[in-house]
Amino acid sequence: MSLENRLTRLFGIRHPVVQAGMAGGATTPQLVSAVSEAGGLGTLGAGYLKPEAIRDAIQQVRALTGTPFAVNLFVPEPFEEPSSQEAANEPLAQYRRELGMEEPGDFSSYAPVFEDQLAVVIEERVPVFSFTFGIPSDEQLTALKEAGVITCGTATTVREAVELERRGVDSICAQGYEAGGHRGTFMGDALEAMVGSFALIPQVADAVSIPVISAGGVMDGRGLAAALVLGADGAQMGTAFLPCPESGAHPAYKEALLVATDEDTTVTRAFSGKPARGLRNRFTVEMAHHEWKLPDYPVQNAYTRDLRAAAAERDDTGLMSLWAGQGARLGRAAPAAEVVERTVTEAERIIGGPVGV
Amino acid sequence: MSLENRLTRLFGIRHPVVQAGMAGGATTPQLVSAVSEAGGLGTLGAGYLKPEAIRDAIQQVRALTGTPFAVNLFVPEPFEEPSSQEAANEPLAQYRRELGMEEPGDFSSYAPVFEDQLAVVIEERVPVFSFTFGIPSDEQLTALKEAGVITCGTATTVREAVELERRGVDSICAQGYEAGGHRGTFMGDALEAMVGSFALIPQVADAVSIPVISAGGVMDGRGLAAALVLGADGAQMGTAFLPCPESGAHPAYKEALLVATDEDTTVTRAFSGKPARGLRNRFTVEMAHHEWKLPDYPVQNAYTRDLRAAAAERDDTGLMSLWAGQGARLGRAAPAAEVVERTVTEAERIIGGPVGV
Repeated sequence: MSLENRLTRLFGIRHPVVQAGMAGGATTPQLVSAVSEAGGLGTLGAGYLKPEAIRDAIQQVRALTGTPFAVNLFVPEPFEEPSSQEAANEPLAQYRRELGMEEPGDFSSYAPVFEDQLAVVIEERVPVFSFTFGIPSDEQLTALKEAGVITCGTATTVREAVELERRGVDSICAQGYEAGGHRGTFMGDALEAMVGSFALIPQVADAVSIPVISAGGVMDGRGLAAALVLGADGAQMGTAFLPCPESGAHPAYKEALLVATDEDTTVTRAFSGKPARGLRNRFTVEMAHHEWKLPDYPVQNAYTRDLRAAAAERDDTGLMSLWAGQGARLGRAAPAAEVVERTVTEAERIIGGPVGV
Repeated sequence: MSLENRLTRLFGIRHPVVQAGMAGGATTPQLVSAVSEAGGLGTLGAGYLKPEAIRDAIQQVRALTGTPFAVNLFVPEPFEEPSSQEAANEPLAQYRRELGMEEPGDFSSYAPVFEDQLAVVIEERVPVFSFTFGIPSDEQLTALKEAGVITCGTATTVREAVELERRGVDSICAQGYEAGGHRGTFMGDALEAMVGSFALIPQVADAVSIPVISAGGVMDGRGLAAALVLGADGAQMGTAFLPCPESGAHPAYKEALLVATDEDTTVTRAFSGKPARGLRNRFTVEMAHHEWKLPDYPVQNAYTRDLRAAAAERDDTGLMSLWAGQGARLGRAAPAAEVVERTVTEAERIIGGPVGV
């Protein structure tokens, strides 16, 4: 089989492999540039970064590679503020006490301002801008286009993919149920929009005419080959890059990923208020019975931020967010370039032809 | 790519396509024999059939084809009897009234006796015996082997696949999260053992040395090709065969499948007491808040049996069990032989070589 590849042409890359824009520190400029240098598309997960930190990171990536890369941001959604911050923080009180933390402070700002983050992406003329949790406004999409930025939106259902294409987005990251991290659902209920990649990819590929990237469960060349034969134009890998030496993931998190089994992940709202897949741990289990009353994203995310940081300082994986896809077990602690090359080589061997042409 | 295929050799079939053994009436002798005649493995879903009905159906299949076929049964699990049948039936009372049904009668027998069903499979020397919800005893597996019956057990996790191989089962049906119908989980919690095929298949393929069949989300040649490149030896398709003219599925059920979207299925305990994926309808939605207190399988299944039958008589899809995988939209109302042939031809075109050799 030889697959003509529209995605590599669109992004200006050699291999149809995208490194997921995981927010939270894993996607260092070293990781992003290593993936892009190897012929894939590295992505800076900038959802939680302030505008100046995004600009710094972009400039660091550019100092390391001249190849295309992406920046990923979270499109803001409406959310409710809890009527009482004190009451909403109550389920976290025992953990704060255990970690020797002070009472929660000021939450006047839950997250960086998207418009300010996006302004940096446009000013810096980032090659590819990927996004999740929604769709930027028409004005924002026009500004991106005028700056020559290629766009990639996240869809968890056919309905969302069709809407992204209708709004003029250039490509779609179809996020299957297996994927680690936050569910990108922006139409309907995130817990009802959990479609396995095996069912999602062919249905999305049938419904849209723009390039589709398969995300969720892709860990090696078998996954890339499967994504392509199901009708995708490429694959996004997140969990597979977390154990890399270039990744900024916490060492205890990297270790936990490499020993995880297929049964060890769960979808939880406990850390951020938005459903996300990660390794089951003390926090996800104990918080499960609070889930229905937790504040919305980004409120809960802001509430747990210092708690997660304090847990990370103590290497306490029981209280850290350990985002992971269902294929975590298939990962290896190899350099990012080796992950890209091994994935592409294995896929080409399976398919019996080039995958990025 | 050319894949040497151990599965077709094991089962004595031409194409690595298995028609799922869906209990409940869809798998008529006409459907089973049509799939087998076309070179796949037709499967009689006999879980709810009494021994003599199984024998009749087997003989009907044999009158229609000389090719190998399978019979699928449910391995019984321990379950709790409700302390009060009356109280346990209470959530169903309004539906019974609406359907003009009498109060529930005698439930002294919840399901046919597995040992008696299995005795027919052995006496009839059925070519392939597939099973789910557990593993037959060592004595039963030995009796099957002595009768020359090839076995195939259902696994929803790597742990279950490893256990099936350890117990001497000949092949594994790896059931991904996308699959329609009952979850086959028999180790741990069924709702925690929902691994998408994309992540499940390569992990199972790495963990066992016997042939693996990928089940869940396979609807066409893209799905069969993806199953093979992920490391499986073949694919099982259930939902894809339901709309066939040979299928015994209710006409209103067939119609509902063909217009379903990727967002329209849910996993529910409402019909049988065991988690199963089907189209969301009035019954799954209204019963959702009773789920935690519903009796175990097969008790709840026995309680709803006459209710589902009465609903089917009235073409009331709101109260019927409409088992379906997440790929239902990709189905077509074509003859079963055409489904098999189109699937294999498309997979061979994608892969660029034969898939059943």
